Order: sequence, then structure tokens, then C-alpha cells
Amino acid sequence: MHTSIDKAAGKLGILIPGLGAVATTLIAGVEAVKKDLAQPVGSLTQMGNIRLGKRTESRFPKVKDFVPLADLNDIVFGGWDLYSDNVFEAAVKAKVLEPMMLHSVRAELEAVKPMKAVFDQAYVPNLNGTHVKQAATKAALAKALMWDIESFREAHDCSRLVMVWCGSTEKYLEPSEVHESLVKFEEGLENNDPAISPSMIYAYAAISLGIPFMNGAPNLTCDIPALIELAKLTSTPIGGKDFKTGQTLMKTIVAPGLQARALGIKGWFSSNILGNRDGYVLDNPDNFKTKEVSKLSVLEDILQPEINPELYGDLYHKVRINYYPPHGDNKESWDNIDIFGWLGYSMQIKINFLCRDSILAAPIVLDLALFSDLAKRAGMSGTQEWLSFYFKSPQTAPGLRPEHDIFKQLIKLQNTLRHMMGEDLITHLGLDYYQDLVEAL
Amino acid sequence: MHTSIDKAAGKLGILIPGLGAVATTLIAGVEAVKKDLAQPVGSLTQMGNIRLGKRTESRFPKVKDFVPLADLNDIVFGGWDLYSDNVFEAAVKAKVLEPMMLHSVRAELEAVKPMKAVFDQAYVPNLNGTHVKQAATKAALAKALMWDIESFREAHDCSRLVMVWCGSTEKYLEPSEVHESLVKFEEGLENNDPAISPSMIYAYAAISLGIPFMNGAPNLTCDIPALIELAKLTSTPIGGKDFKTGQTLMKTIVAPGLQARALGIKGWFSSNILGNRDGYVLDNPDNFKTKEVSKLSVLEDILQPEINPELYGDLYHKVRINYYPPHGDNKESWDNIDIFGWLGYSMQIKINFLCRDSILAAPIVLDLALFSDLAKRAGMSGTQEWLSFYFKSPQTAPGLRPEHDIFKQLIKLQNTLRHMMGEDLITHLGLDYYQDLVEAL
Amino acid sequence: MHTSIDKAAGKLGILIPGLGAVATTLIAGVEAVKKDLAQPVGSLTQMGNIRLGKRTESRFPKVKDFVPLADLNDIVFGGWDLYSDNVFEAAVKAKVLEPMMLHSVRAELEAVKPMKAVFDQAYVPNLNGTHVKQAATKAALAKALMWDIESFREAHDCSRLVMVWCGSTEKYLEPSEVHESLVKFEEGLENNDPAISPSMIYAYAAISLGIPFMNGAPNLTCDIPALIELAKLTSTPIGGKDFKTGQTLMKTIVAPGLQARALGIKGWFSSNILGNRDGYVLDNPDNFKTKEVSKLSVLEDILQPEINPELYGDLYHKVRINYYPPHGDNKESWDNIDIFGWLGYSMQIKINFLCRDSILAAPIVLDLALFSDLAKRAGMSGTQEWLSFYFKSPQTAPGLRPEHDIFKQLIKLQNTLRHMMGEDLITHLGLDYYQDLVEAL
Amino acid sequence: MHTSIDKAAGKLGILIPGLGAVATTLIAGVEAVKKDLAQPVGSLTQMGNIRLGKRTESRFPKVKDFVPLADLNDIVFGGWDLYSDNVFEAAVKAKVLEPMMLHSVRAELEAVKPMKAVFDQAYVPNLNGTHVKQAATKAALAKALMWDIESFREAHDCSRLVMVWCGSTEKYLEPSEVHESLVKFEEGLENNDPAISPSMIYAYAAISLGIPFMNGAPNLTCDIPALIELAKLTSTPIGGKDFKTGQTLMKTIVAPGLQARALGIKGWFSSNILGNRDGYVLDNPDNFKTKEVSKLSVLEDILQPEINPELYGDLYHKVRINYYPPHGDNKESWDNIDIFGWLGYSMQIKINFLCRDSILAAPIVLDLALFSDLAKRAGMSGTQEWLSFYFKSPQTAPGLRPEHDIFKQLIKLQNTLRHMMGEDLITHLGLDYYQDLVEAL
Repeated sequence: MHTSIDKAAGKLGILIPGLGAVATTLIAGVEAVKKDLAQPVGSLTQMGNIRLGKRTESRFPKVKDFVPLADLNDIVFGGWDLYSDNVFEAAVKAKVLEPMMLHSVRAELEAVKPMKAVFDQAYVPNLNGTHVKQAATKAALAKALMWDIESFREAHDCSRLVMVWCGSTEKYLEPSEVHESLVKFEEGLENNDPAISPSMIYAYAAISLGIPFMNGAPNLTCDIPALIELAKLTSTPIGGKDFKTGQTLMKTIVAPGLQARALGIKGWFSSNILGNRDGYVLDNPDNFKTKEVSKLSVLEDILQPEINPELYGDLYHKVRINYYPPHGDNKESWDNIDIFGWLGYSMQIKINFLCRDSILAAPIVLDLALFSDLAKRAGMSGTQEWLSFYFKSPQTAPGLRPEHDIFKQLIKLQNTLRHMMGEDLITHLGLDYYQDLVEAL
Repeated sequence: MHTSIDKAAGKLGILIPGLGAVATTLIAGVEAVKKDLAQPVGSLTQMGNIRLGKRTESRFPKVKDFVPLADLNDIVFGGWDLYSDNVFEAAVKAKVLEPMMLHSVRAELEAVKPMKAVFDQAYVPNLNGTHVKQAATKAALAKALMWDIESFREAHDCSRLVMVWCGSTEKYLEPSEVHESLVKFEEGLENNDPAISPSMIYAYAAISLGIPFMNGAPNLTCDIPALIELAKLTSTPIGGKDFKTGQTLMKTIVAPGLQARALGIKGWFSSNILGNRDGYVLDNPDNFKTKEVSKLSVLEDILQPEINPELYGDLYHKVRINYYPPHGDNKESWDNIDIFGWLGYSMQIKINFLCRDSILAAPIVLDLALFSDLAKRAGMSGTQEWLSFYFKSPQTAPGLRPEHDIFKQLIKLQNTLRHMMGEDLITHLGLDYYQDLVEAL
Repeated sequence: MHTSIDKAAGKLGILIPGLGAVATTLIAGVEAVKKDLAQPVGSLTQMGNIRLGKRTESRFPKVKDFVPLADLNDIVFGGWDLYSDNVFEAAVKAKVLEPMMLHSVRAELEAVKPMKAVFDQAYVPNLNGTHVKQAATKAALAKALMWDIESFREAHDCSRLVMVWCGSTEKYLEPSEVHESLVKFEEGLENNDPAISPSMIYAYAAISLGIPFMNGAPNLTCDIPALIELAKLTSTPIGGKDFKTGQTLMKTIVAPGLQARALGIKGWFSSNILGNRDGYVLDNPDNFKTKEVSKLSVLEDILQPEINPELYGDLYHKVRINYYPPHGDNKESWDNIDIFGWLGYSMQIKINFLCRDSILAAPIVLDLALFSDLAKRAGMSGTQEWLSFYFKSPQTAPGLRPEHDIFKQLIKLQNTLRHMMGEDLITHLGLDYYQDLVEAL
Repeated sequence: MHTSIDKAAGKLGILIPGLGAVATTLIAGVEAVKKDLAQPVGSLTQMGNIRLGKRTESRFPKVKDFVPLADLNDIVFGGWDLYSDNVFEAAVKAKVLEPMMLHSVRAELEAVKPMKAVFDQAYVPNLNGTHVKQAATKAALAKALMWDIESFREAHDCSRLVMVWCGSTEKYLEPSEVHESLVKFEEGLENNDPAISPSMIYAYAAISLGIPFMNGAPNLTCDIPALIELAKLTSTPIGGKDFKTGQTLMKTIVAPGLQARALGIKGWFSSNILGNRDGYVLDNPDNFKTKEVSKLSVLEDILQPEINPELYGDLYHKVRINYYPPHGDNKESWDNIDIFGWLGYSMQIKINFLCRDSILAAPIVLDLALFSDLAKRAGMSGTQEWLSFYFKSPQTAPGLRPEHDIFKQLIKLQNTLRHMMGEDLITHLGLDYYQDLVEAL
């Protein structure tokens, strides 16, 4: 498969709907990294290694030295927002990065000015945009976005583009008829069907143009038959949903560990406090519901209570998000896990994660941009399940249970890379080391 | 390989040096499970499932239904201790299980009376045994143990035996010349070489008789060339060191998760409070050192700072164990993890594990007994690296770096079982689900 | 004042509306203490000491040996509940105390059978009573309660009675016109005014008969002019509101400590998980509101932001209660406190309290019963502010700010007892110890 | 007493042995406060209020507006250190305050250059001074300090001076014969008695000159009969020991709260991690012992197990300090408190304090300087027990039990101020509010 990957030649444009805390932290960071002022920690593509061959070979290249990814120096950023602040102004307001760091890349950030957003307050009641496109139909809005994209491509001389949704969580939507086929969806765009949310319009615009689309929010967006169909037609990689940061990251680390040891779980209570715009949006119950569905699914899929009812059949799982301004972007989670072991004796685990939401999310955006661009060049299209590693609620093939265990997700990602590059897959069997030993004696 | 595994016919004797909190919790538990009074939670062999074939096949048998393990009803227990209490008395003193549960299996527990221990206070200064074998040489002590073993086998009509060390942590020993070959070791037994500790005498006795030996303490014991040589000669599976429970269990769950995401770690502080006999023994600095070496190695081997110096090169790792009587066997750990992400921004994780030491350890003893017996019947001998899953400080082939990541350990264990039974190994690649999909469209 | 306190002769009947977890834990406990099976820990009247005189006098009698309280052997219990379970059955269902302890006082508990409750689901939507009085008017219900009380007094030959509300939190009620005077209130009883809740009917019945009434829930109940007026008329001590247990207890301990040091507080987030009936009732937003108002007032009154706006003017205080069945009565709280010190530098305090709701509440009920009986015998009537120590939201004289600082509350309580008994009040000045020293040199 | 307090006219020199993290944070902070760049949070003298008169009077002046304290603008700083860095350089190395804040007061900080220290590595093995006085006898060192002091007074035109020890914890010293009288002590100075540590030489120099001396470390220093005698002779206020910050602050807040409610305590485990110079010094067991004695005494004196053996007789109290460089000055404590309530049922409290050592200590130094200067002007001499509020291990009159309860300490401090100014002492009795009410009806 190796020979079939196109080279990463020319500029890669990363287009971002939602230039808020996450996106500005990403953009400022990439500019700082280019100037050697900081390191892209948390990015598997930039800082991670991958083991190749047998353990005794000691081959652990960096991921970026193993697969042909776009170079950070070839990246240009663009995006849309419902406020007209440029990226420097937005980053200052987000209060994620220190002023001194922002000033060191001020010119680069000021150069990124948002295009007018496709936004509708019906989907995000707690926000009120002032920098918003007006059009009679959702179809017209989609066209306006496509026009933005093509203008950007030309202006920045990009050879390739990707789009990563960093906008808000929209209110909860059930899959409905308009989502079922491309034909119906395009009719819905013309008819302003309320089941078509703004994020879907962005996804439609990108995928129509063959631009990979990754969905960082729990919104339905491209996880509908209509857009999967479109992605196949236009040979476009897509993926989602909801960047896996903070508490859910810890959950998909810890739950597989407890399950590995066949320890039972009878309760898992998760509470979050955060004070950024994301927290404010989620203070609205309809938007919280979208997030809650995304966060709750995790444990069930990892623990499979139907297979192991004695251990996980009575699990009570509750997730709460509390808007708490004093913390700003410094999201903090507190988990109480009620487990039981040998003969049913109970034990407790408490995890208190003092995290930074955008600091954890920014490198995910970068990795998804680079990997989806890689996938496009490798001829992969449709849902990219191997990128589940980055998502709270991975989009999968219809009927296929999503994999939430972060370690299985990582093996899937790494074995996909090995497979792409013609390396042996790794099974961790390792018996051969001992057979050699036997023979050597 | 499947056909070559002998059946688990007849009785399996589990012989345990050290009938303290862990062993008595195991024995009481197995008896309670046999009577259907409780469930063997935490035991992968009894409660765990294993996925076979493709995800869409939905094949998830229990491990015990997949590989031919000894049945719990065929198990008999025996052991040695430096106190003469029978298992019921010892269990009451250990205060791990509730009186009502102990009384429900009282007769079975009273029937297990310890044989006199091989013990030397020089290796465990904080204990003072009263039920101890006397002999002129360590060789003579080894013979006495072999005589005990054969008597037990006969008395209980066992077709197979295994031995699992549940005794105390001995003071720190470096590998030395007497450990280097079987010849030198046997001379050392005759000469009472101080580098041969009591646990080594037990291991020597077991392995000489072809009885699998698993080491639940951080003691050197069978992780020396002399006893590995003997294991090969007698076709005996061996393994160790140090049951992975509580804090280290969590560490080998969480550290791989952070590494998966390329998050940096600059400090990891681990504190424990416990008030059982184990805690009392570890209050002695020489014994704590043995434990500390075992606990500290974990992070370095998972994080590989030499490959990733930017992320893990400055990691400061400290482990403290504090004897705290009010908690008894309810060991509690508190970890503070200082991590850093995108652009070096720092975050913190605090984990507070209110665990129960013996409740977590007992099912490990059971699994190791059953799996080492399986290995013996499958013709596997020497170090069983696939059982690393259960150990804080896994014994490996010389020169081979131990694997501490519990998820890689689990895959290794599961793929070994699949390999034994002729099933496909699992790589989690999963691209085929999507290729099918492509073709289907 | 000492001589004017009547002796505690004869039996004291403690009447409790709401024989749930708290009340049954109290009753079982008092019976166990009488049999010398356990100690009344947490009860200031039974276990606490009080310092008298100068430090150098070393006079620290038990409170019960200092003031003339009713003896535990003279106590009889009665009560009402909306379920017909006797106290033994209710205690078993509450799962607070271990079965073995309950069985040791089974006969005593079975003897306490609830009288039919005055209950109206409109005030507690999550409960559905089956053991409830029927009457055309609230006035008639009040009469029925008075009839119950007098029957109880006669049946048990009580010389004195007290009533302590241990029932549920009712939905939020604002003070309204019907509460403003006794005349209007009695009209309201006749007219079934919806602003008169069941707890008010109990309070009215008790106070009318001169029986001290203490309110353990955050309900308005006797904190209205009408019932204060009645209390004065009938010379009855009254008090409330809401037993101070768990998280609020910790809050009124920690907040005064931070304030003592002039440390600023910018945020206080409090989360609770609990799985008992109380938690279930509070899952209803209207009932939670009553509780929230009670819990939120605490910090403002301690910190006085209007006096110290630089330190406390921007405090963001949030309280959440989450119904979480796996924990049962083992309420657990988690607090995050964002403080700032010298030059505004921020720090954080996290408090995780693994408490037991009824274990903390039961001794409060006992103390309030004994102290309110003492107050009655001492001729004190109306609001007993010196018992603020026990309440989340102390009832005070109109226009008087409640004191929430538990240490000032304790001094108030202790100095009140000293004052009653003619002992010197304590100011902790202590300069005299050093003046003596000067003279001695 | 009011009229007898001299005015705070002229300059007050604050002399500090040990210009490390605490002292430089204080000095930089006072300079920043003078420039209105920050607020002196945590300082009771600057930010705290004091209630005067009855609650209904609403009199809550700032402490600094109530008693005649030195004004911050009249303060000048001086000190000694074993390194020659000026205060700006030392503050930069201490990494407590942000560079931007330090630069805003750079000139003022650079102007404070340490005088050569009296230092002896025998008392602090982990430090190695390079800026140290040399002399044949301790008496000569004391004279050299007195010469330094007088030179400073003259150079800065100070009308008054105070000294506050901010140096390291010295190794543990028992009170011995040389400490018993001034005569013996002065002989010891001549004879270089090893029981006279450097901190004692500073205290001797200050007290000889009538300069108030406050001891911020757990060292014995001025808590010996010889120096108390000297203090009386020279009419000098003295006080100590060991600034009460962080964990011990929380302990003296929480323990009185639990005791107030007659809750039992069976274990209290306290662990600390810190990475500053203080942590490094305490990594030496002899120095840790001095600290441990100071920290352990707290609970016993608050809980008085001899009076309440059922509740506190079996308390197991353990304190650990762990040097952990990743945290720097950001000391973090973790406490586990095992309590028991009604009928002996157990509960747990965990407190995790993410504090900043020097941020908490700096305002204490300021308050002690200002209050000890006030005491001097008010004619108070010898041990100032009313300043116990600031100390982990308060120095008291011989035979008098120290008071550790921070709330009693606060009342003692506040009533002392009220007493000085001729205001009524406050007892929190408050019955009069209700008697008025009775009469009003």
C-alpha cells in the first residue's frame, strides 16, 4: 500500500469553523512551534513514536518520520466565527495562553481573520453571533461556504485542504428522514429543514469539494447516511465525533484497565467544572443533552454489560457538567468510581484531573488535520475508524459497535500506519523470544 | 498447538508459602465460591471474557470456557507459615473478610493447617516466627520442603501441584555469584550462602520437583540464572515478581494512557498508607528497598525516556509507603501526577484509590495457579512472560526489557491463549470492515 | 439563673415526624447506648466537655454532668410516617446500621410504630404515602395531631415532650401573608391555604401544646411570625432550620478559618452524591430549591462580602446535589475552593468527605431534643439562637443576621450554658496569665 | 490601656535573618502594595476587619484603622543571608512571584543587599553558605550582629526595629542547661556551647537591644528561660515558633471543628510534597525532626485525649514531608482523616491543599512585625501569647498549655486588641437580642 500514498507537496490549508479557545490555541501553538518557542506536546504526529518490528530491533521512529505527513511549515490556517475578532484578539479573550506567548506570534495571529459564520441561535441558545452570513436557504449558505473555501485555496495557494469543526455543541438532534440519503438532504437544504444544523452545512460544503471533514463536537453533523454517501462519492475521509479530552480521556484509560482485571463496577459518577464559552453553551439543557449522550456511551461500549452482567450489569453512570466561571478554561473533573473485587468487596477510586481544555484539544485538531490529509492522499475515503483514538463518540460503519478503549484505539491507529507503510502488524505475542531462548540453551 | 495440552484431570494442589492475609482471603474465597456464596470477582480466569474472531462474530466466551483450566472443585490448598494458626484463625486475625463470611466456611478453613516454615529473621527483621523448621544447612531445609510437598501430594491425592509465594518481602538482595548457575547455587545451599534467601529455597524445592513456581513478592527468588536453568531442566513454568495490585496497577493503567497521547510527565509522587502485616514488614528500610526497586521500575519501562527525552527525560518519580494502623488491610494510595501538554502547559492528576490489598491480590494468586498449571500441561517451561499482566516487576528473558503497560500485557496474555487454542491473533486493524463497506456500496 | 431550671424528672417523650433513616438511626442508637453496646459519638450533650473557669483550673466536665439534662433512660420515642413500617422495618430498609446491631435492639424498635402522617404529595412530589391522615381541613389535621400527642403522653406517662422534625424537604415556599400573624395562620388552616405546608401543621400542633419544636429540614415551618408569636404565647422554645451535617458542616468549619487569615475566596464549588430517600426527594427541582437556598446562605453570612469586597466580593458559590444510588446513605461530598493570598496569587483546596448522612444527623436530633427540653425548663421561649450550632440556616430574631461560623456558634452555646449555670463567660483573653508572670519575676 | 500606646512615628526597620523565598516574597509584595500594583491579601493587619460592640451596631473597622500600626510607607527592610544575592536576585531564584511582578519593583529589591550571615553547617547540613561571618566565639558573632543592627538603624534613620526569623529549620535541639539562665547562656556564648544555635545568637542580639523578636521556624531559639529572662529585662516582646501555613493551618481549622461536634478521630495521616529550599533542608532527618515535633503537637493540644479518651485516646497521627522538586514552592498537602461518629461508625475526610508556601507565609511576617512593634509601644514584654494565631507551635508561659485552635487564637488576638483600645470583649452570648425582643412584644 506504501507506494500508493501521494507526497505531501505544497501547502495544506486547515479550515476551522469556530475560532474560539481551541482553534486559537492550536494556531498560536503551531506558529510558536515553527519559531521554536515551544513544543507541540500532546500531538502524536509530532512527538509520538511508533515501534516497528520485533522488540529486540529497537526501532522507534517518530510518527512524523515514519509516514509522509504535511510539514508544519506548509500549513496555513483559515476559519469562520460568529464574532469578528481576529485570532489574536480571540486568543487574548480566551485566556488560555499567557500574554507573553501570544505577543511573540501576534502578527501571525492577527493575519487570520474569520470569515462570516453560518450560525443559527436556534441551535445554540446561549450564544448570539454578530458576524453571520445571511441567505434565504441553507443551500445558499452551503454555496457561500464553498465560495469561501475556494477563495481561501486560491488566496493561499493551497494544494490541499482539510476542515476540522471546532465550533460549539449544538442542541440535541435525532437522526431523521432528511438525513437518510443525499437526495433528501439536498432537498432539505433547499427547504430549510430544521433537522439540518449549521455544522451539517459546513460538512456538506467540505465533503462536496472532496475536503476531509473531522467533527470535534458531539453534534450529529457528518454521522448521517447522506453525508457518508457523499463522502464515498467524492472520495473524502470523514470522522468524528467530539474530541476526547479531559475526563472522557481518563475514563477510556481507566475503564479498560479495571475491565482487564475483571473488577466489577457498580457506579461511576463524573462531575466537571469549567468556565469557558464551552461551559456556558453547555449550561443550556438541550445542548448539554448532546454532550451527555456522547459522554455516557463510553462506558457501556467498553464494559459490555450484556456479556458480563455480573460485573457491569448494574453500573450506574452519571455525568454532570457545571458552569463555574472562576476556573475559566481550566476545566477540572472529579470522578468517583465504585468498584468491587473478590467476593464482591467494594473499593473506591477518586480521580481529580486539573486539566486545561484547549491545551488538550489543540494537538488533537492538528493530528486529525494531518492524518485526514494523509488518508486522502492514501486513497482512503468515508469514515476513518482508525482515528477513533481522538474521539469521545467514534463514528463507525453502520451496525459496528464503536471501540472506546483507548488502547485498542491506539493499536488500531498504529497498526493502520504500519499497514499503510508495509510493516508487520504487532500482536504482542512474544513467544518467539522464549523459543529462541530454548533453542539457545 | 491445541491438541498438545494435557487435560486437567484429577486434583490440583495449590501450595502457598505464607498463609497470611492474601492466602487466607484466597482460600476462604474459593471455598465460598464453591458453595455459591460469593463470586470470584477480579479473577480473569473465572469472570473474564475473551474476544475471538472478528468483531462481527460476537464470540466472547469466558476464559475458563475457552482454555482447559482446572475446575475450582478440584482444588486443594496447603501451605507453610511461621505462625501455627490454622487458616480460619489466620483469616480472623487478618480482618479482611467479614466474620459472617468466614464462619460460613469455617470447617474448610480450619482443615488447612500450616506446615512449619523455612524462615530466617535476618531477611525479615520485623517478624519473629515461632513455627519454623530447624536444620543445619539450606540444602537440608530444601529437602525438608520437598518431603512436605510429596507428603501433601500423597495425602490429598493430587495429580498436579503448583506453588505461589504469598510470603513477606525480604530485605534487598543484589544478584551475586552464587545465583549464576545451578552448580554454584547447590553449593551455596550446602554452604549456607547468605545470598540464598528463604524464598529461594522454596523455589528450588518446587522447581526441582517440576512444580510451577510463581513469585508474588518483589524478592529475587527465581529470577536468577540458576533457577531458570533448573526450570528448563525440569520443564517447569516459573514467573514473578510481585503481585500487581493497588497503586502500581493504577500506574500501569494510567501511564500508558498518558503516553498514548504524547503527554509529557515531569513528576509522579506516589504515597501509600496501610496497616497490615505487609505494611509493618515494609516499615523496615531494607525490606522497603526491595519493594521500592520493584515499584520504581514501572514508569521508566513504560515511558522509555531514552526514546522520548522531551516528554519523559526529566521525570521525577517518588514512591512512599507509610505504615498506618488505623487502615488495617484497607491500603489507600494517593498519587499526584504532574503532566504537561501543548506548548508545555502544566496540568495535574490526583488519584486516590481506597483499595483492599488482599481483595485485589487473592484472585491474582488463583489465576497464576491455574495458568501456570495450564502452561505446564501445554509443555511450556521457564519464564512465562505472558503472565507479566499479574506482576509489578515482570521476570523476562535475559536482556529483554519487561513490558509494564497493562494493556500490552493483556494482549500478550490473550494472544497467547488464542495461539494455544489455534485461534487468530487479534491486531485491531479493522480496515476490512470498511473495505467490505466500500465493496457493498 | 441556675436555681430557676426545673429538674428533669419523669419521662421525656421525643416525637418525630418522619421515621426514616435519621430517626431510626437515632432510636436504634439510643437503645444500643442504653444497653452499653455502643457510644453516642457525635452528641455534644453525651460525649462533649465544657471548659469552666481559668485554663489553669483544669475544669472540663462533660456537658451532661454540668447542666441538668434528661437521662437517656428516661427517653421514650414516638412519631409519624407516611409508610406503616415499624422502626425496625424502616431501619432495615434504610441500610444505615449493620444488621447485627439492629437485631440487638429489635424488640425495642418493633415497639415503635408510626402514627399516620399528615402528608400531601403536592409538597413532596417524589414520595407517595400510604399511611396518611385524611381530613377536610388543615385545622382538622392539626387537631388530629394534637390528639395523637396527648394520647402518646398518656400512654407513655411522659412528664415532658419535645418534637423534632426529621421529615423530608418540602418544595420551596416564600413567606406570605398567611404566615404573618397567628390570626391569619389559623384562618389559613381552616381555608386549606396552600402556603401552609404539612410541616407547619406539625409545628402548630406542638407549639400550641407548649411542646418545644425543632426543625431539621430547610422548610419554612416555624420560621414565620405566626408561629413565633404562638411560641411566645405558649412559652415554647423553637428552632431551626436544617440539620448541619456533612458538607455544610465542613463549610462552616473551613470558611471561618480562611476568613480568619484574611485569605480571599473567588470560587466555591460543592458537589454531593447520595442515594438515600433524601437524595431521591431532592432530585425534584422544587424541593432542591428549598435546600439550595439553605445551603447557599452560609458563605455570604460568614464572609460578609459587603464589609470585605476585595476578598469576598466576587465569590462564585455553587452547590449541587446528585442522586446516586450506589452510595445509599453514604453521602459523599467534594468541594473545590479557589482561594487567593498575598498579591492575589491563587491556591486551591479540595475536600472530599466520605460521610454517612444519618450517622451525622442522629446525634443532632438527640442534642436538640435534650437542649430544647432544658430551655423549656429554664423558662426560655421563642427562637433559641444559641442552638444555631446545629443548623444550616439558623432561625434568628427578625432583622438579626444569622451566625453561621461554627466556632462562634459553639462559643454562643457554651457561654449560654455557663450563663445558665452561673459560671464566668470565657473570652480567651488570657493576658492575666502573663501579668501574673510579670509580677512573679 | 489605650492612652498608653506610643504613636507609630518615624520609620520601622524590619530585619530578617534568611532572605530566601518567604522574605523576598514579603519584601517584593510590600513594595508592590506601596505602588498599588497588588493587595496584601492574607494579612490580617492590612485586609482584616474586627467587629466592635453589639452585632446590631455594625461596627467592623479594618484592623489597621482600629489600632495604631506602622504604615507600610514607613517600613524599610534589611537582613542577613548565607548567599550574597540581593533580594531581586534571590526572588528570581525562588520562583515564587512572576517575573513581570518582580521587574516592576526591581530597583527597590536590588537595593536590599544581605549582610553576612551567622551560619554553621552543623545545624543545617544540606546548606553550604558562602556569605558568612567569621569569629572566634559565638559572643563575638552576637556582637557583630548588634553592630550590623545599629549600623542599619543609623543608615536608614529608623525610629524602631523588629526582627523576624525567616531562616531555615535547624537540627533538633533539646532544652539544656546552658539555656536555663541568662548568666549560663552568656557563658555559653563565650565557650561556643554547641547547644547555642545560630538562630539563638540572632535572638540574643535583638533582644539585648530591646528589639522585638519573632521566630518563624520550629527552632528552639527564644523559647528558653535565658532569653525570656533577657526579654523581661529589656522590655522586649518575643514570640514563636514556626509560621502556621498550609497543612497545619488547615489542621488547626478542621480539628476544632470535629471536636466541636464530639466526633471521634482514630487516625490522621498528613503528607506533604514540596520542592523549595525548605523542602531540601527538611530532607535531612535531624532537621525534619525539629519540624515533626512542631507539627505533631498540634492535634494533641487541641483534642485533649486525656479529657476525652473515648474520642481521641487512640488517635494515630503521622506527618510526612517529601522533597519533590517538580512542585518548587508550590507545596501540596494531602490529609486523610479517619473519624467516627454515632455508635462508632467510621467516616473519612480527605483534604488536598494546593498551596504556595511563601504566599501564605509572607503576610504572617508582616503581621508579626507590625503587631510586635505595637506590643513594644504598648509596653508589653516577654512572650506574646496573643500572637499564637500565627504559629504552629506557640510559645507560652512555662506550664501553660499552648492553644492551637485557630478560632480560640483569633478570639484571643481580637479580644487583646479590643482590650488595648478599651472596647468591650466579645463573648457571643447574644441572649440580650432575644430579651429585647421579649420586652418589645
